[in-house]
Amino acid sequence: MTREYQADPALYINGTWRSGESRDVHQVLNPATGKVIAEIPLATATDLDEALAASEKGFALWRATDVNARAVILHKAAALIRERAEHIATLLTMEQGKPLAEARTETLSCAAVFEYCAEEAKRSYGRIALRPAGQRAMVLKQPVGPVASLTPWNFPVSLMSKKVAAALATGCSVIAKPAEETPGSTSEIMRCIADAGIPAGVAQLVFGVPDMVSRHLLGSPVIRKLSFTGSIPVGKHLMKLAADGVKRVTMELGGHAPVLVFDDCNLEKTLDIVVTQKFRNAGQVCISPTRFYVQEGIYERFVAGFNERTGKVKVGNGLDADTIMGPLANPRRPAAVGSLIEDAIAKGARVGTGGSAENGDGFFFRPTVLSDVPLEADIMSHEPFGPVALIRPFKSFDEAIEQANRLPFGLASFVHTENGRTANMAGDLIESGMVGINTAGISMPDMPFGGVKDSGFGSEGGPEGLESYYVTKAIHQA
Amino acid sequence: MTREYQADPALYINGTWRSGESRDVHQVLNPATGKVIAEIPLATATDLDEALAASEKGFALWRATDVNARAVILHKAAALIRERAEHIATLLTMEQGKPLAEARTETLSCAAVFEYCAEEAKRSYGRIALRPAGQRAMVLKQPVGPVASLTPWNFPVSLMSKKVAAALATGCSVIAKPAEETPGSTSEIMRCIADAGIPAGVAQLVFGVPDMVSRHLLGSPVIRKLSFTGSIPVGKHLMKLAADGVKRVTMELGGHAPVLVFDDCNLEKTLDIVVTQKFRNAGQVCISPTRFYVQEGIYERFVAGFNERTGKVKVGNGLDADTIMGPLANPRRPAAVGSLIEDAIAKGARVGTGGSAENGDGFFFRPTVLSDVPLEADIMSHEPFGPVALIRPFKSFDEAIEQANRLPFGLASFVHTENGRTANMAGDLIESGMVGINTAGISMPDMPFGGVKDSGFGSEGGPEGLESYYVTKAIHQA
Amino acid sequence: MTREYQADPALYINGTWRSGESRDVHQVLNPATGKVIAEIPLATATDLDEALAASEKGFALWRATDVNARAVILHKAAALIRERAEHIATLLTMEQGKPLAEARTETLSCAAVFEYCAEEAKRSYGRIALRPAGQRAMVLKQPVGPVASLTPWNFPVSLMSKKVAAALATGCSVIAKPAEETPGSTSEIMRCIADAGIPAGVAQLVFGVPDMVSRHLLGSPVIRKLSFTGSIPVGKHLMKLAADGVKRVTMELGGHAPVLVFDDCNLEKTLDIVVTQKFRNAGQVCISPTRFYVQEGIYERFVAGFNERTGKVKVGNGLDADTIMGPLANPRRPAAVGSLIEDAIAKGARVGTGGSAENGDGFFFRPTVLSDVPLEADIMSHEPFGPVALIRPFKSFDEAIEQANRLPFGLASFVHTENGRTANMAGDLIESGMVGINTAGISMPDMPFGGVKDSGFGSEGGPEGLESYYVTKAIHQA
Amino acid sequence: MTREYQADPALYINGTWRSGESRDVHQVLNPATGKVIAEIPLATATDLDEALAASEKGFALWRATDVNARAVILHKAAALIRERAEHIATLLTMEQGKPLAEARTETLSCAAVFEYCAEEAKRSYGRIALRPAGQRAMVLKQPVGPVASLTPWNFPVSLMSKKVAAALATGCSVIAKPAEETPGSTSEIMRCIADAGIPAGVAQLVFGVPDMVSRHLLGSPVIRKLSFTGSIPVGKHLMKLAADGVKRVTMELGGHAPVLVFDDCNLEKTLDIVVTQKFRNAGQVCISPTRFYVQEGIYERFVAGFNERTGKVKVGNGLDADTIMGPLANPRRPAAVGSLIEDAIAKGARVGTGGSAENGDGFFFRPTVLSDVPLEADIMSHEPFGPVALIRPFKSFDEAIEQANRLPFGLASFVHTENGRTANMAGDLIESGMVGINTAGISMPDMPFGGVKDSGFGSEGGPEGLESYYVTKAIHQA
Repeated sequence: MTREYQADPALYINGTWRSGESRDVHQVLNPATGKVIAEIPLATATDLDEALAASEKGFALWRATDVNARAVILHKAAALIRERAEHIATLLTMEQGKPLAEARTETLSCAAVFEYCAEEAKRSYGRIALRPAGQRAMVLKQPVGPVASLTPWNFPVSLMSKKVAAALATGCSVIAKPAEETPGSTSEIMRCIADAGIPAGVAQLVFGVPDMVSRHLLGSPVIRKLSFTGSIPVGKHLMKLAADGVKRVTMELGGHAPVLVFDDCNLEKTLDIVVTQKFRNAGQVCISPTRFYVQEGIYERFVAGFNERTGKVKVGNGLDADTIMGPLANPRRPAAVGSLIEDAIAKGARVGTGGSAENGDGFFFRPTVLSDVPLEADIMSHEPFGPVALIRPFKSFDEAIEQANRLPFGLASFVHTENGRTANMAGDLIESGMVGINTAGISMPDMPFGGVKDSGFGSEGGPEGLESYYVTKAIHQA
Repeated sequence: MTREYQADPALYINGTWRSGESRDVHQVLNPATGKVIAEIPLATATDLDEALAASEKGFALWRATDVNARAVILHKAAALIRERAEHIATLLTMEQGKPLAEARTETLSCAAVFEYCAEEAKRSYGRIALRPAGQRAMVLKQPVGPVASLTPWNFPVSLMSKKVAAALATGCSVIAKPAEETPGSTSEIMRCIADAGIPAGVAQLVFGVPDMVSRHLLGSPVIRKLSFTGSIPVGKHLMKLAADGVKRVTMELGGHAPVLVFDDCNLEKTLDIVVTQKFRNAGQVCISPTRFYVQEGIYERFVAGFNERTGKVKVGNGLDADTIMGPLANPRRPAAVGSLIEDAIAKGARVGTGGSAENGDGFFFRPTVLSDVPLEADIMSHEPFGPVALIRPFKSFDEAIEQANRLPFGLASFVHTENGRTANMAGDLIESGMVGINTAGISMPDMPFGGVKDSGFGSEGGPEGLESYYVTKAIHQA
Repeated sequence: MTREYQADPALYINGTWRSGESRDVHQVLNPATGKVIAEIPLATATDLDEALAASEKGFALWRATDVNARAVILHKAAALIRERAEHIATLLTMEQGKPLAEARTETLSCAAVFEYCAEEAKRSYGRIALRPAGQRAMVLKQPVGPVASLTPWNFPVSLMSKKVAAALATGCSVIAKPAEETPGSTSEIMRCIADAGIPAGVAQLVFGVPDMVSRHLLGSPVIRKLSFTGSIPVGKHLMKLAADGVKRVTMELGGHAPVLVFDDCNLEKTLDIVVTQKFRNAGQVCISPTRFYVQEGIYERFVAGFNERTGKVKVGNGLDADTIMGPLANPRRPAAVGSLIEDAIAKGARVGTGGSAENGDGFFFRPTVLSDVPLEADIMSHEPFGPVALIRPFKSFDEAIEQANRLPFGLASFVHTENGRTANMAGDLIESGMVGINTAGISMPDMPFGGVKDSGFGSEGGPEGLESYYVTKAIHQA
Repeated sequence: MTREYQADPALYINGTWRSGESRDVHQVLNPATGKVIAEIPLATATDLDEALAASEKGFALWRATDVNARAVILHKAAALIRERAEHIATLLTMEQGKPLAEARTETLSCAAVFEYCAEEAKRSYGRIALRPAGQRAMVLKQPVGPVASLTPWNFPVSLMSKKVAAALATGCSVIAKPAEETPGSTSEIMRCIADAGIPAGVAQLVFGVPDMVSRHLLGSPVIRKLSFTGSIPVGKHLMKLAADGVKRVTMELGGHAPVLVFDDCNLEKTLDIVVTQKFRNAGQVCISPTRFYVQEGIYERFVAGFNERTGKVKVGNGLDADTIMGPLANPRRPAAVGSLIEDAIAKGARVGTGGSAENGDGFFFRPTVLSDVPLEADIMSHEPFGPVALIRPFKSFDEAIEQANRLPFGLASFVHTENGRTANMAGDLIESGMVGINTAGISMPDMPFGGVKDSGFGSEGGPEGLESYYVTKAIHQA
């Protein structure tokens, strides 16, 4: 079967799809080939103003729509995503690079997110405090208002869906700006929402020059909340823009996930889990396991096992059935990753596997394992966001925790141990938003996902995630 | 009984009280007399650095302290506040101006807040999602880290206490900077906490040049959360400073509370409530009822009744037993309020009572009632923060709601009606963080307090308020 | 269109449908014609023993089935109920008598209940209490075990569905025994569950001699919970049987719903609501409005309006499109209702409309309005469970509440008033499990339904209803 | 110091203490000496009728009392219990036998329970479901009504306190009947409540002939809930009595706690925990560890270690400072325990330590360890309720779980393992209300305590425990 890039990425504003008409365009590349596969329109200031005006009207309409009626549309959208999953996944692989199997999983997870949010929003109960008979003190949750959703290229479909589904379920309108690198898959998600019957102005999609779009949307009083996934520097910049309007924010920023591997772990099972996890999406994952701290009793065996398994990771075009790891997502990534690795090697890290980009037209990078990485290496403090594992030994529990917590980030962390108390202690003491214990699975619709320290503000997922789309109203009645 | 200003306001850093030593000073005025009653030391950069370092260590210690042990200290502090309430209230009246009865109420409310937070924090339960046997998916709440608390002069004791009590109960350390105008009462609250046995570095108190202190604290990576009560412009400025460190924020900013008075209300009861409420703390209350929208059937009677009751409001030194309303809090306020009133009158507002400052040494302003105030008057869009009631008629329910929601603020609002459905509809449709229906009592320890739109970010009070001192940790265990 | 009784009611035990084989039979009557329309098999002791053994095995399997997998089957069952709703509704009308429109509504509400429970069970979260690092104190909810569901003939489809859906969603197995009068519609509901793929033994259906079935099921250690809807005397009897095995119970027993109509209500709207509500299902509703206490200012107008509207209620075969009220459900009912009315009239009640059974083959009774009913009339203390409204005047709020609370029952009550405080006070002070204020709609999937005092034990519906299918497990880990 | 039994146990009815007046009496024995130390009056039918009438009035008053005002009285009672703890503990030891240290702990735990309930009841929030603007669907919790509390002699002070504190905190009135064996300590607890200012009729205390009191209280329509701790047969009997009035019940019945000790546990630490735990209160504890299933790899070492530690348990009068274990509570117990042990020995159990009663006047029994106890021994299926440990080996995890679950009881269970997954799996699969993992501490005020299967109905402790003192009210407002 030949898969083609059959997409029609466009702006979706006030219920109509828009493109062309003298708008500037952005060229979309296939990272496995380096070739241009599409052009997308970039929103003008007028486009954005229309979107803002429509979002304000859309909010007034949508917040007054019963939560059950909103859920019906979200369930319909989920059903359409499931129907169209193969098409959407193909677009995703072609514009982003990840293996088709991963693209399918990502797409189907979006349907689950829409379903989850639809049901969860029905349960955003109010609270009644105790008062004497005849009086009422009630806390209600009400939708915060029009939301701006800004999302990146690494999980374009799922990251946009998390924000859009939560906004819509809770009664907010939303303007989504996914990454310009991945317009086809994200347009198709929006098309599912549109085809499910969302009223005009309630859910909208734009592409554009990122900083211009951010400033325009956040500069408007219409937008009441920003939900962003992306890098820490951009996140800080956007928080400042949001501050001017006292806008609510949810920020999912970068991480640098430590993995604590204790002597008493099930070593083979641990290696199977972490190597697979490391090279998923070519390591371009904010919760990718990166700093492996391995207790000294099993350190050498761990390093050997990691290298051995990494050597078998098949790199190739994501459309090929036997590809385990695809290219990096854009031409800037191989150079950036390579540079961090060179610095580490120069400072003393051992290269066990990989270490450099692949030659050729695509943006491929070889799966890389570095051991004995010195703390001074830049890569120990800066998120590589690529297929690189960094391994270091540790001696004691306390040292492991200290190392895990040494950076100003705290998104995800992982622990491998058979001991129950070690697991519970590490779970409590590690400073991160998520902790996986003997598992890589830390992103589920019913659980919160988000970072602490510089890794973010607030959560997505679970009732905790929906919470951030509400404002709190206290009604006191005498 | 002669009451004297027996205070020793000082910085409380790392467990010691500090003053003098060549620090710059700020002069504290009694607003009822215009006289200097004290001098306070202003923190130096070194002071702040020491406070930050102590706060980091204090946090490490305090978060590891069992929640029940923390509660014991907070209950002790509450008991001390109750014991020393008369002294604290006297200082509060002398430095802030409010009548002694109000100062007593404010002080005792702090004790209640400490007690509430102590007990509530014990109930910050985690959540366990459903998983197959042997697996766990848990959501825990953990303290966010060292907190900066910045609070104003209008309710210096209670606003500082809300922040400090919540921070301490949840396991955070806190550096409090109350307003330099009100150092005596706030120092005494901190002294109660210190005397209750709080460990060094866990709770600290500073005064200083506000912008310098804000920049210094928020510029440090130690501080993980800002809780601020104050004006909207300052709030936005602080949110930007916080953005640089992806710090959590709770912002309690300004309001411009509408009061919807429907034809079917109990008119006499309504007037009794709202006139008392209007002139409490000389209107220097962020939830002060300000824009009175009165349905046309009772409009004239309402205006007459309001003026009549206002005429009886006794203005004077807060220490005098029969004083109902004291002076404004500082010499800038009478001019600011007067200027807004003059603009309103020039644009057509009718003056029923008051309208200008009192002559004399103190910062007194006459209780003022303006009716038929045109929407174009600046005072209809800018918070007067003084003893001024603005009255306008309305015809329909929809018009009333539209007027209530016309400003970019949304802190408090009030509704007076006997009709149950009108009450419920208004409660749902008004855009504000709190709604009082037939009551002025909207600030209770067990209920959230906070604004929507430009009036703020997050809540204080209730389990909702504590929530903002936690970060969310998801633990997934296979 | 001719509608026929196309049903094959049978026992569903351990995954197979059973009938015949020398089992005793029960004859099913059409209450609109008095004719036999079907025969059903009655379970033998052997049938019940097999069902119990299968239920035990089914529970072991089902509790270990992931909550999401259980939900998939429940959603499938709901979809089948929706598909087959017209067929099920026809059976329901033919065997129970209610108008087809009501039968349709009842059937569709079952689908909603299955969907609600499927989603809600996913959210039966555990709770984690606060403990020092490394320790855990967790509260989990686990399914109670095999459930016996015993349900009556008045809402055979929805009452069985509430119990079966809740049991299945939470991981319990269930043996359902609906009323022998209504086997066709209930068999079809079970068929939808079976066709949706429920494993053998997890959901089972039996008919039989009621007391023999109750004693057999509750006498077995296999059954861990009884959920019953029916009369108070039978409820007490069953509670005693359950006591022998310390079995959990949910009891939905009888009521005698008061309706407080205040002078300030919207009279026409109130009458429209309550008259429609009174004659739904010919008053054979446990929450049917029965005792109308009307404030004296509008008493005579209320009585007149009630009689006028009642006169227009079209009685007939439920299959006829213009029928508003069908027959009573069995030949015992008209006599029972008639006898209570005669007693009331003898004691001084005024008959405004109806008052007696209709002649003919069916079990029809005329819609009846009695006013000035003396408290001594038996009907004021015994649930008539038929199309009879009892009206009395009252003077004050306190008197109204006292009258509402005078019986040992407390299932539903209703209040009609425009005043917000009256509504809130009445809502708080009436002793009943449900209060409808200006509405008859008090049975929703997301809200609890159940009585206080002798009207029951526990609730169905909402998270509160699911709760009773769980036992609580506290895990303390050091 | 000589400690005397300075008690004045009496009935406390409608605000007055009653004794004498020709009432029958019960003689109170000191189990350490076998001597009579006091006489208590037994309530007459008239006493009980007066208590019921007072309880009805008390409930009307108390439910209308603000939850904060109720809490003030409960906090006062807690403070008095703390003040009088030494006196109460002495009475408890003298009438029940337990070592004074245990009696002190029990007494102080009561104060904590009163404080916990006082605060928790303030948080019995209502729930608001989502509805269109202007409508409300609210779930409120309201006190169930007058409660009968029936409690045994093993933890007379704490078991009565749990019930009384929960009832009072939630707004119920309560009639407490503690065991006649332990009237002094329980009277003193009631005296603290009375002295704290509880209104007459709200909390009452009676002693009497148990079956007569139960039938009288449960036969009255006044009592709306029974909370009972005691044996399974009596529990079933009481549940039947309660069924006649559709009264709510909380039943804390017997157990037969299994302890699963896995090869990978910390053996010395485990032995230290379980041996201490076994002989607390001479094993007269419903959650006493009884059936020790020990994995075969450490079986012999465990048996040896258990015997060695047991040999050091000092038995004596609870008033002696070095006593670790006191006498059994009454003269019936030594014979009952001895008989079960004889049967076990006859069927093959090995006696490692103890095995028989001590000679002398008191009711002492020797700490006993039986190993290789056959399943056929009666003691493996019947709660010994005495100082006897039963030890058996097991091979696999599955076998251990099967053994743990083999009885129709399920109150507490314990697991000792270092493996995290074993701990979690066992926690999930054991059928009991509480599971202690590497800990004996499973009774805390903020956590539910209660059994599954025949071990009980409902929980005490935590928000879950308070729940059972409420009925649920759903208010629907249009």
